Amino acid sequence: MKILIVNGPNLNLLGTREPQIYGNKSMEDVLGELKAEFSSDEFSYFQSNSEGAIIDHLQQADFDALIINPGAYTHYSYAIADCLKNIQKTKIEVHISHIYQREEFRQKSVTAPYTNGLISGFGTKGYRLAVLSLK
Amino acid sequence: MKILIVNGPNLNLLGTREPQIYGNKSMEDVLGELKAEFSSDEFSYFQSNSEGAIIDHLQQADFDALIINPGAYTHYSYAIADCLKNIQKTKIEVHISHIYQREEFRQKSVTAPYTNGLISGFGTKGYRLAVLSLK
Amino acid sequence: MKILIVNGPNLNLLGTREPQIYGNKSMEDVLGELKAEFSSDEFSYFQSNSEGAIIDHLQQADFDALIINPGAYTHYSYAIADCLKNIQKTKIEVHISHIYQREEFRQKSVTAPYTNGLISGFGTKGYRLAVLSLK
Amino acid sequence: MKILIVNGPNLNLLGTREPQIYGNKSMEDVLGELKAEFSSDEFSYFQSNSEGAIIDHLQQADFDALIINPGAYTHYSYAIADCLKNIQKTKIEVHISHIYQREEFRQKSVTAPYTNGLISGFGTKGYRLAVLSLK
Amino acid sequence: MKILIVNGPNLNLLGTREPQIYGNKSMEDVLGELKAEFSSDEFSYFQSNSEGAIIDHLQQADFDALIINPGAYTHYSYAIADCLKNIQKTKIEVHISHIYQREEFRQKSVTAPYTNGLISGFGTKGYRLAVLSLK
Amino acid sequence: MKILIVNGPNLNLLGTREPQIYGNKSMEDVLGELKAEFSSDEFSYFQSNSEGAIIDHLQQADFDALIINPGAYTHYSYAIADCLKNIQKTKIEVHISHIYQREEFRQKSVTAPYTNGLISGFGTKGYRLAVLSLK
Amino acid sequence: MKILIVNGPNLNLLGTREPQIYGNKSMEDVLGELKAEFSSDEFSYFQSNSEGAIIDHLQQADFDALIINPGAYTHYSYAIADCLKNIQKTKIEVHISHIYQREEFRQKSVTAPYTNGLISGFGTKGYRLAVLSLK
Amino acid sequence: MKILIVNGPNLNLLGTREPQIYGNKSMEDVLGELKAEFSSDEFSYFQSNSEGAIIDHLQQADFDALIINPGAYTHYSYAIADCLKNIQKTKIEVHISHIYQREEFRQKSVTAPYTNGLISGFGTKGYRLAVLSLK
Amino acid sequence: MKILIVNGPNLNLLGTREPQIYGNKSMEDVLGELKAEFSSDEFSYFQSNSEGAIIDHLQQADFDALIINPGAYTHYSYAIADCLKNIQKTKIEVHISHIYQREEFRQKSVTAPYTNGLISGFGTKGYRLAVLSLK
Amino acid sequence: MKILIVNGPNLNLLGTREPQIYGNKSMEDVLGELKAEFSSDEFSYFQSNSEGAIIDHLQQADFDALIINPGAYTHYSYAIADCLKNIQKTKIEVHISHIYQREEFRQKSVTAPYTNGLISGFGTKGYRLAVLSLK
Amino acid sequence: MKILIVNGPNLNLLGTREPQIYGNKSMEDVLGELKAEFSSDEFSYFQSNSEGAIIDHLQQADFDALIINPGAYTHYSYAIADCLKNIQKTKIEVHISHIYQREEFRQKSVTAPYTNGLISGFGTKGYRLAVLSLK
Amino acid sequence: MKILIVNGPNLNLLGTREPQIYGNKSMEDVLGELKAEFSSDEFSYFQSNSEGAIIDHLQQADFDALIINPGAYTHYSYAIADCLKNIQKTKIEVHISHIYQREEFRQKSVTAPYTNGLISGFGTKGYRLAVLSLK
Repeated sequence: MKILIVNGPNLNLLGTREPQIYGNKSMEDVLGELKAEFSSDEFSYFQSNSEGAIIDHLQQADFDALIINPGAYTHYSYAIADCLKNIQKTKIEVHISHIYQREEFRQKSVTAPYTNGLISGFGTKGYRLAVLSLK
Repeated sequence: MKILIVNGPNLNLLGTREPQIYGNKSMEDVLGELKAEFSSDEFSYFQSNSEGAIIDHLQQADFDALIINPGAYTHYSYAIADCLKNIQKTKIEVHISHIYQREEFRQKSVTAPYTNGLISGFGTKGYRLAVLSLK
Repeated sequence: MKILIVNGPNLNLLGTREPQIYGNKSMEDVLGELKAEFSSDEFSYFQSNSEGAIIDHLQQADFDALIINPGAYTHYSYAIADCLKNIQKTKIEVHISHIYQREEFRQKSVTAPYTNGLISGFGTKGYRLAVLSLK
Repeated sequence: MKILIVNGPNLNLLGTREPQIYGNKSMEDVLGELKAEFSSDEFSYFQSNSEGAIIDHLQQADFDALIINPGAYTHYSYAIADCLKNIQKTKIEVHISHIYQREEFRQKSVTAPYTNGLISGFGTKGYRLAVLSLK
Repeated sequence: MKILIVNGPNLNLLGTREPQIYGNKSMEDVLGELKAEFSSDEFSYFQSNSEGAIIDHLQQADFDALIINPGAYTHYSYAIADCLKNIQKTKIEVHISHIYQREEFRQKSVTAPYTNGLISGFGTKGYRLAVLSLK
Repeated sequence: MKILIVNGPNLNLLGTREPQIYGNKSMEDVLGELKAEFSSDEFSYFQSNSEGAIIDHLQQADFDALIINPGAYTHYSYAIADCLKNIQKTKIEVHISHIYQREEFRQKSVTAPYTNGLISGFGTKGYRLAVLSLK
Repeated sequence: MKILIVNGPNLNLLGTREPQIYGNKSMEDVLGELKAEFSSDEFSYFQSNSEGAIIDHLQQADFDALIINPGAYTHYSYAIADCLKNIQKTKIEVHISHIYQREEFRQKSVTAPYTNGLISGFGTKGYRLAVLSLK
Repeated sequence: MKILIVNGPNLNLLGTREPQIYGNKSMEDVLGELKAEFSSDEFSYFQSNSEGAIIDHLQQADFDALIINPGAYTHYSYAIADCLKNIQKTKIEVHISHIYQREEFRQKSVTAPYTNGLISGFGTKGYRLAVLSLK
Repeated sequence: MKILIVNGPNLNLLGTREPQIYGNKSMEDVLGELKAEFSSDEFSYFQSNSEGAIIDHLQQADFDALIINPGAYTHYSYAIADCLKNIQKTKIEVHISHIYQREEFRQKSVTAPYTNGLISGFGTKGYRLAVLSLK
Repeated sequence: MKILIVNGPNLNLLGTREPQIYGNKSMEDVLGELKAEFSSDEFSYFQSNSEGAIIDHLQQADFDALIINPGAYTHYSYAIADCLKNIQKTKIEVHISHIYQREEFRQKSVTAPYTNGLISGFGTKGYRLAVLSLK
Repeated sequence: MKILIVNGPNLNLLGTREPQIYGNKSMEDVLGELKAEFSSDEFSYFQSNSEGAIIDHLQQADFDALIINPGAYTHYSYAIADCLKNIQKTKIEVHISHIYQREEFRQKSVTAPYTNGLISGFGTKGYRLAVLSLK
Repeated sequence: MKILIVNGPNLNLLGTREPQIYGNKSMEDVLGELKAEFSSDEFSYFQSNSEGAIIDHLQQADFDALIINPGAYTHYSYAIADCLKNIQKTKIEVHISHIYQREEFRQKSVTAPYTNGLISGFGTKGYRLAVLSLK
């Protein structure tokens, strides 16, 4: 299975950004582990701080399933939400921190209604759970 | 690991209730599969339609980790929320349907702030993902 | 026709509780009159102050049509609402007092969207109108 | 008993308007049935699409009891509400469709606080129940 | 000065409608007194229960100053508000009862922003104060 | 094609009312131009300040397509909205001024959900655009 | 009749403050005119920028009727509102500008529910109308 | 005097639950102290995690005065509120923690309007103050 | 112990103001009783209708514990709230009437979050309970 | 006339994206038709999924009139709104679907207040109407 | 230049009040530094806990520019806001703490719309920046 | 000190955009003046209309202190807010116009909670004050 993982703004800093909230594994570590464990799957990865670049990538990429962590765009990007709506694949939304234990504005997701499932609060392990959910 | 799974109101009807939303596996099927796959863990299960009975059980049960699907109580039971707050174990909230794709009132969880993570929208497979998250 | 009548919390006090609002007929009187008038129907009755017990009963009882007065649970019990949603029978919601002439919070019903009709403000005569509506 | 039945805007189309919601009996059919069943009562009927004409009629008509379906005016006509407040007779509000199962704005009634009871969701049978409630 | 007095819905019942709130003088009494006291002015009077008829009259009438009590239309008739906006004369809004001592919805006036002044709570004497304000 | 144009309250004053907002063409001018340009179509025109009269006309008129400017009723007349819902013809809503550049309350249209399209802000030219949209 | 006139904060600047809104008569001018016109009445006057001083004065002053313009305190001083509630005399609230034509926050009065009437928008002539209302 | 003390959900854990908020005295300790100090009174005690069981007990118990700490039910149980409304005895609501210093949802009490007084923030000493208030 | 009792606006009228709500004991009576009962404590008392004067006094007074009834300032004086926040003593908020049984705006306290406890609804006996709470 | 047409995010998929809502004409088809019909005008076209790129283009492009469909940015991009505000040309906002018949959030436009007119619900024909409006 | 600095309630405690938020410089220190640095300007200073006294001073003082920190009155004193509106001088609002990092209610300023600029979050250095802004 | 100045969307037009609000100095002028006055500091400048590009730059740039004017992104870019949260340097938010004197939506800043201070309303002089605040 071709699995695309997309991370939104500031998630390129994973491992250094607020480690008490996001842990100190980098996304490279996470991807390495996923590739090792799920060796029969093909992983591609895209991160951008730009809403438009994320949409461009989602429209053009070739994949069977999507795991997306839209970062702060989760809470207001109707443009990414519209883009997800157009994608006829399985789409999993992942949040590293537990959005229900943080600020009020982080408890609203405008993208989630256009995904198939949501996994929140398991740290970077959430990506692994998302892959497992595709099996 | 002793894992307690608690289901809230109307979830005793799983497999027969709105199968287009909840699927047609019964909770017995789900438990059977979990026990088979995770044979080194010990599972106990409790379901009740009564808010008070759920709290009673949560206070008295002996377990290492909790997987809870509070059903409709998710959205208003501050009493169950308070109870969860007192439990110093890993607590995972599971929703079978994707709460973000349903009515407005189902998008608010008063219990989630007192759990460690949330898994929503994966059908009964969500229980399996929750167990995996404990590893 | 087997008709189940279910009353929610504090309605066991009918006839003594706030008689200026609820009248002074007891539910036994009401049932007696219904049985007398509709002698070809079969009536069963259940009252509980407990949300869970009401759901248990609704799930297990054998009936053709339901007349339910959820009392104060009308305004917040999504658990009873979910339970009603699962019942494929005619369901009539009755309120003895006129909920539109009382406190703001009593004008919202979370259960009504899952019933077939609502009768409010006719005193205990409302149960009789509900039975008539089933003919 | 002289019973006045008043219907608000668009209810002159009953029987042809959205039959899946309102059924396909015309108001003439309904009145015919009521007159047949309750032959000792005297029925008069008034329908208007105009808020002012409804108020004019309510102020001038001679009746013992009122059955009113204010149609869309239910949701914003404080003028009709004020008019009902001035009428010292039994007043029953009827809705053919179940207002609780429709759009949000239809769940608010500004006229109901000035009626004695409300019957919602029983189709045109609701008028019959209203007459029965007067006995 | 030609003074037009316009009263909205249900104000034709003045003197009989809720006398504890509106007093028991009829509008004829009030007009008689005004004509007696302000004999050099010319008074015309219009009352209607119909929003459209009030607008028609306001557009066509010949007057130097307007005293208007829009009754319940005060709270939602943007159509009358628009009509008032087009009138380049002095316009006084009068309420017989004190709208600030009544229901919440009566404390909002959509017409007042298009009048020059508001007089509330002085009973039918409010019309006299309005005439005095024009001097 | 038989095209019915309906204008709501205060639009009979077009050409004189707030010319800086609505321009100084009268509706007669507009209709004259439309008839000249679209000579193969048949135009009928109706204006009323009365909500009820507009509904009466919409129910009875014979037309293939409707162009409606409900004026201030746009913002609160659920009765006209219900009436539009019943009409199985193409329905275009036109606003002469740009409702998005005016007061907050003018940005909400309760009728638009029951029309096929909305044209706002083009002055009286909006009627011409509406006719063009029907081709 | 002993008439007490009380003005709230910034009203000592009357005649100089925003003359396009409040006019350019000083309060001394206004009082002079009132004393001249109503020579059989006894007027006393109090102005303060301090909420507490206004309450002190209202509690201690000797008067038969009160005319109060609470200025900005109108919109939030529950303390003055409570004080007015305790006064068993006729109390008239006056606003020089038309509060309905100004900022949103000026359209709410927390003091008005404890007065007998309100006069808004007549400039300093409002005080004269208030005196006339006492006759 | 027969004094009934009722505690709601999770209060059976008093002394062990969040001691930094609720202190470390158990309810048995508290009752022991009350019985010692007020030896001429008769105390009975009831705790339940179940809303329905609390209502059952309140309806059936024999007492002269009630001290109730509804726990989390304080914030949403209209059913307990209705039950309290029916009790014609002195009813005191007690909260161990200071509800005004905690989450927003804890600052709303739906039961308090049906009690005679409220004591919040004094730790378990609040029960003693409630007893003293009955003298 | 030096106990400072501070009362806010209009509470100097205690005993005469709305006796059906506040009782007819004056504050002098209350203080006399407290001094008699708690003879080993030292009481000082301050009342003002002025927000600023209350803050001045709270900043300068010498006391071990504070009992404060901020009257109407309870509901909006963030200035008094800030002042209380700075005081490192035990602070008890007292309301004579039961604020939960009165107007909506009285159910919000902006000062309570900065006190240690709240006593509401016990009449002037509330001051005694507050003193007892300090023991 | 030089006419610039700008489309926002996901509108590059026109013709393939949700054809039941947006039709199955591509933007190339639409542009071809416009150029054919309005051969004396000069059309340029820009589409981007990126908010910033749209602003860059709007600031730099050379045009006489603008037709813009901001897609999902319509509902939250104050940055594009600010950019439009700076443009002293005729600006028309077009929506292909009828935004009033879709989700609540699509009924709010933050860009419309800075355009001259809005055309919604006419499918891709809306672009043609916009061009016609410029004549 | 004559510069008036006005501080609102509780700011007389500067240097001792919550030093972790407000720092431990007293206002005397701050003024001393300002006078030293800006020796060609003339500084006057006024602090009061009383809303009315602040307004009195602002109306009477002689100054060329105003630097005001209204303390808690920032959030609700429309009376001070009105007073500022009347002052035709440069007016700078200063907050020592960063109001955007504190409680929700501190993020709203009713006075700021009537000042020329706002400086928030720079500690007592904010006063110096305000003076610099006047150059 | 290395000072980075970042400006958001449309601020590249400074000097030409709405000069009555933003003045007619270009950013080049402003930077020139800063470099002249603060010759011992090192200034770098970045402007972009793109949210993503701003985040990219903030993550990669080398600086000791940040002065940021996020333009319209101030009001909704949680992505920039998250980015600021990760930066452990002094961060000053500057607005050229006085955001409190403009539209409602401009009074909310989602970025300000993650800056150290805010300067609003001083025109382009605000940048100079921000630099001064760093000394």
